[in-house]
Amino acid sequence: MKISLIQMNVVESKEANLRRAAELISSAAGSDLIMLPEMFCCPYAPASFVENAEPEGGRVFRALSEMAKSAGAYLIGGSMPELSEGRIYNTCFVFDPEGRLAAKHRKAHLFDVDIAGGQRFMESETLSAGKEATVFSTPFGNIGVCICFDVRFPEFIHEMKGMDLLAVPAAFNMTTGPLHWELLFRARAVDEQVFTLGCAPARDENGGYVSYANSIAVDPWGRVIARAGAEETVLSFGIDVSEAKRVRRQIPTGR
Amino acid sequence: MKISLIQMNVVESKEANLRRAAELISSAAGSDLIMLPEMFCCPYAPASFVENAEPEGGRVFRALSEMAKSAGAYLIGGSMPELSEGRIYNTCFVFDPEGRLAAKHRKAHLFDVDIAGGQRFMESETLSAGKEATVFSTPFGNIGVCICFDVRFPEFIHEMKGMDLLAVPAAFNMTTGPLHWELLFRARAVDEQVFTLGCAPARDENGGYVSYANSIAVDPWGRVIARAGAEETVLSFGIDVSEAKRVRRQIPTGR
Repeated sequence: MKISLIQMNVVESKEANLRRAAELISSAAGSDLIMLPEMFCCPYAPASFVENAEPEGGRVFRALSEMAKSAGAYLIGGSMPELSEGRIYNTCFVFDPEGRLAAKHRKAHLFDVDIAGGQRFMESETLSAGKEATVFSTPFGNIGVCICFDVRFPEFIHEMKGMDLLAVPAAFNMTTGPLHWELLFRARAVDEQVFTLGCAPARDENGGYVSYANSIAVDPWGRVIARAGAEETVLSFGIDVSEAKRVRRQIPTGR
Repeated sequence: MKISLIQMNVVESKEANLRRAAELISSAAGSDLIMLPEMFCCPYAPASFVENAEPEGGRVFRALSEMAKSAGAYLIGGSMPELSEGRIYNTCFVFDPEGRLAAKHRKAHLFDVDIAGGQRFMESETLSAGKEATVFSTPFGNIGVCICFDVRFPEFIHEMKGMDLLAVPAAFNMTTGPLHWELLFRARAVDEQVFTLGCAPARDENGGYVSYANSIAVDPWGRVIARAGAEETVLSFGIDVSEAKRVRRQIPTGR
């Protein structure tokens, strides 16, 4: 199974972000699964969420469907501000290789932190939280999707039953990234005996929220198998999904 | 709060192990909390569990109570094979500084692994599993206790409500130790926003089951604050328990 993580620069313009996503995705031809980062279509900022929120089926949704179809791959569409009944959610839409909606995850744990001498951010000031754990089936295996802060809640991840692979559009920052990014992707891989993938925006030192970047893939033994730096990158690699089942037989924790 | 982890050599003779534990504990004078390793009183082997099993209140239990009282410290008594109604449990008895029983944990997840080219061990062939999560109060804060393989189950650790510190008598091996020992103690510290302590037997390359040793302490940010090597060691260090509460305020995950 060939996977590509699109660690793209995210800029102010939604149209520019959609164009860049499409370009990078077409450069990842031959992939079976492609993932975009959290809030790939607009800056990570409260005012930007409000300004760029769109309903399911809107501009960004249709563009993602087209990208999946052109690439002939499953596309985990990072996340976007989804407008629904007057609320805004941080939502990941997933499309199959024919461009049909395969799954949808609304971030269930909003990112509210206030670290002394470090990052402050309060998603709950503008966003609403989803409630569901999300797993969908593919011919390659079962894929779970959650978004960024969700990955800190192992009891929630454990509700995502039957996964072989956990895909996480995310955007850690320069405080929580160095502390916890690799640790949490390795931990969730070992806890649930699955592959874990984290895809983040490239780092923009001048942005209002500075992404740690470092998009990452970890195998079910907890070993890092691919990792990007800070720059815009398409991180491509192959995995053998059946390794997750072998680990579960050798260390039978009931996953 | 001063803590000492007793990474002791475990030998065949129960009496020799009790003597050595008492000697090392008395060398840790001034500690507030002292911890012994998993199965500190007998070799880690199925036949040894059967041969050395004792009821609550037996020889090892009374010796531990004495050691706690002499040290004037909380003593997390590693673990021992506990005989109860014809079953054997892998049990940790905890004593307060007056030598009274403060808590008791029966390992809830038995260690059954069979890793290709690595470790095989089947605790369930001789042992029964406990059912409860264990947390007790001290003037320093609330302390949770689980044993070794229990630490792989974050949904179980999450049931240990109100902890400031998680203490884990354990004995990883030369397969799972290098892969997962540090990772799991760092992960559980970050997941639950607590200090984590792991105390293992010293390494005996000629033993039937070779302990990875590397007794460890991690702060609630996931940073390793103390770590032993392979040799017999008393690992002593101080912590500020209130740091756990500060982390919970700064990254409010509802712990």
